[in-house]
Amino acid sequence: MSLIKDRNPQKGMRDLLPKQVELRNYVSSRILDVYKKYGFSQIETPSLENIELLSNGEGGENEKILFKILKRGEKLDLNNINDENSLVDMGLRYDLTVPMCRFYANNRAQLPQVFKIAQFGDVWRAERPQKGRFRQFKQFDIDIIGDKSTSAEIELIFATSEALMSLDFKNFKVRINDRRILSGLVKYCGFKESDYNKVFVIIDKLSKIGIEGIKEEFKKSGFSDDSVNMLIEIIQKLIETSVTIKTIESILPNIDKNVLDDLSFVIETVSKQAGRNYSIVLDITLVRGMGYYTGQIFEIETEGYKTSIAGGGRYDSLIGKFLGEATIPACGFSIGFERVISILEEQCFNVPKPKRKIVLLYSEEEISNINEIFLTAQKLRAEGNIVLVEEKSKNPKVQLDKLMEQGFDSFAVFSNGKEIEVKTLGQK
Amino acid sequence: MSLIKDRNPQKGMRDLLPKQVELRNYVSSRILDVYKKYGFSQIETPSLENIELLSNGEGGENEKILFKILKRGEKLDLNNINDENSLVDMGLRYDLTVPMCRFYANNRAQLPQVFKIAQFGDVWRAERPQKGRFRQFKQFDIDIIGDKSTSAEIELIFATSEALMSLDFKNFKVRINDRRILSGLVKYCGFKESDYNKVFVIIDKLSKIGIEGIKEEFKKSGFSDDSVNMLIEIIQKLIETSVTIKTIESILPNIDKNVLDDLSFVIETVSKQAGRNYSIVLDITLVRGMGYYTGQIFEIETEGYKTSIAGGGRYDSLIGKFLGEATIPACGFSIGFERVISILEEQCFNVPKPKRKIVLLYSEEEISNINEIFLTAQKLRAEGNIVLVEEKSKNPKVQLDKLMEQGFDSFAVFSNGKEIEVKTLGQK
Repeated sequence: MSLIKDRNPQKGMRDLLPKQVELRNYVSSRILDVYKKYGFSQIETPSLENIELLSNGEGGENEKILFKILKRGEKLDLNNINDENSLVDMGLRYDLTVPMCRFYANNRAQLPQVFKIAQFGDVWRAERPQKGRFRQFKQFDIDIIGDKSTSAEIELIFATSEALMSLDFKNFKVRINDRRILSGLVKYCGFKESDYNKVFVIIDKLSKIGIEGIKEEFKKSGFSDDSVNMLIEIIQKLIETSVTIKTIESILPNIDKNVLDDLSFVIETVSKQAGRNYSIVLDITLVRGMGYYTGQIFEIETEGYKTSIAGGGRYDSLIGKFLGEATIPACGFSIGFERVISILEEQCFNVPKPKRKIVLLYSEEEISNINEIFLTAQKLRAEGNIVLVEEKSKNPKVQLDKLMEQGFDSFAVFSNGKEIEVKTLGQK
Repeated sequence: MSLIKDRNPQKGMRDLLPKQVELRNYVSSRILDVYKKYGFSQIETPSLENIELLSNGEGGENEKILFKILKRGEKLDLNNINDENSLVDMGLRYDLTVPMCRFYANNRAQLPQVFKIAQFGDVWRAERPQKGRFRQFKQFDIDIIGDKSTSAEIELIFATSEALMSLDFKNFKVRINDRRILSGLVKYCGFKESDYNKVFVIIDKLSKIGIEGIKEEFKKSGFSDDSVNMLIEIIQKLIETSVTIKTIESILPNIDKNVLDDLSFVIETVSKQAGRNYSIVLDITLVRGMGYYTGQIFEIETEGYKTSIAGGGRYDSLIGKFLGEATIPACGFSIGFERVISILEEQCFNVPKPKRKIVLLYSEEEISNINEIFLTAQKLRAEGNIVLVEEKSKNPKVQLDKLMEQGFDSFAVFSNGKEIEVKTLGQK
């Protein structure tokens, strides 16, 4: 092997140092502990999926930025290339939802009727790298399959909120809406059903570019002026006053009464439980990107940070497509794991350290007594401490300073196979 | 989206059901807890690496079974294809050692002088699928970089043994050898240095095909009869008697005394600590596959299973190749995570369950009291129990039986918003 010149990770990907992994392990285990208490059970699917599954249209923009796997062996025919697709057979998953649907279809017979799933894993997207965006990143999803009642939505919001609280997030805001209200609104203004998704995409930008911004976007889009003016007028009315279910009922008489009752019920129930810890508010402009949502949708925002740290909703038609059934009730909530990590890092969050971290130093001539040193180490480890055994370097001050940086708080030096008392690092 | 026909995971890959993930999480957290106590700190590298890094020769056979990533955008020129390599820019890592070496070279300035690394992650190999072999599987590695003394070997063997004991593995056997003894043996018999690795590969098969088997292999290989006969004779002598360092000294006078002293020291030290829990034996026929080993090598075998469950050794020249230095001391030990899991599954190993798993059932008409039901659930969760809230199905017996299968042990039914006492499942 020749000298490797490029020591960096690949574009948009990261080497994670011990401190970073420690925080990630802590955060994921706190979240998983909460989800377990709610009866969610964890599944795992492979990182690679059939290229057809990843290109079937459900992934929207994500399908355009797949990492694709070259065919191997006889299947790869370099003399007969029609297009990119003739070269590949698999891809790296871009989310955890599509593989989970395949999993559910594949294993349904073994699964309980109401299946509460937790998933934690890597996804890959060949996006143009930018600050805070990576090409490999982790997602933490929960989903409830087989429950058509709103208790699914409520449990997802409870569990996700409790998970965030367990990480010291406070005063966050759950924004909630229903896709059927959005559709009702857009329909009421006279848009064609085939245009709904395009209109939603523009409404979605409201929080970023404001009402004047979306006016501009609508102007460029070529929709009828009447519809656009009506929509803007209603949105303005809805964001100026604090929206209630009653407001919606009066402005959009075409919305199904059950949709509004369900939304009221979820908001009331969550409010009661949330108390002063967090809040839930109706936000008629909440859209959520994915096309597959069919009912309530929700996002969590935390004080002082613009982007959401969790998002989800009901998608009753997606899994059915894998099984040839019209409807299989499903509802999910995903924590933006990397977003949560970067907020905690910004806040210099410290992983609690219940145990002592001790280093046992021995000088070179002590090697004949190494058995006693190892015995001492074993004893201290059995007591629950983290114990490092190291030869004393020529400059023990530099050595100990570096160990303090790694979180070591105590040390002992060996002489004639006997430890000199365990001392606290940093003290004279 | 049309109906998805293929619901199976891709060839050689697996969907993991809740029970499987639960076992894996338990095993990995036990192992990691032990490694942490020994002062190892966890790092992570990306799944994807530069195709050049993965094809530089250090991976041996693994480089022939890479999953390669198709170039994207402008970089992919379908009109100008010379060979496979012009189509790809990255690959999925086939092990954790090569990416760790790149990591070390990339981050050296921030790392302690003696760096004790733990790594747990997926690797991918496009092998022909067979029983117990998968195309995506997990490895659990520890490595000590920067320690040239045998205390590195000793700590690796202690930590790995303790990790296995924490999973109830007993009476396992650590086999140990030194690559320099193997080289000395082969040199002594008159083989050329360029043939050493080929000879090692044949010796490695001894435990599988026996002495007659390797005689056959040597016959086919075209080495000089004199060398082969001499080698076979020595091996026979060494496996018939129980080999000691003294035997080696008398048979192979050309071996460096320090190599033998170090080996004695490690065997003695580990024996003392192992007590009756496990044993360490010198095995002159132990080879280990990878070409990069330079010193002591070791494997762990457990009673009743032929293949090893852990393996490793010293590789002092590998990391230097990334930094343009001749030697950077390094030593590692890897637990065959999938092998350990499959042994535990065969033994019907049960993950300890300290908490109760309770299901709260409510009938449809109880929905108006759902707030009280959720409050009860929150209270029980706060006490550390796993609590599922579910609507009572039309056939509660079937529902409760299925919940028992999932490990639920208790249930309560709600009436008028009040729980009827929590009962143990399975009792009348």
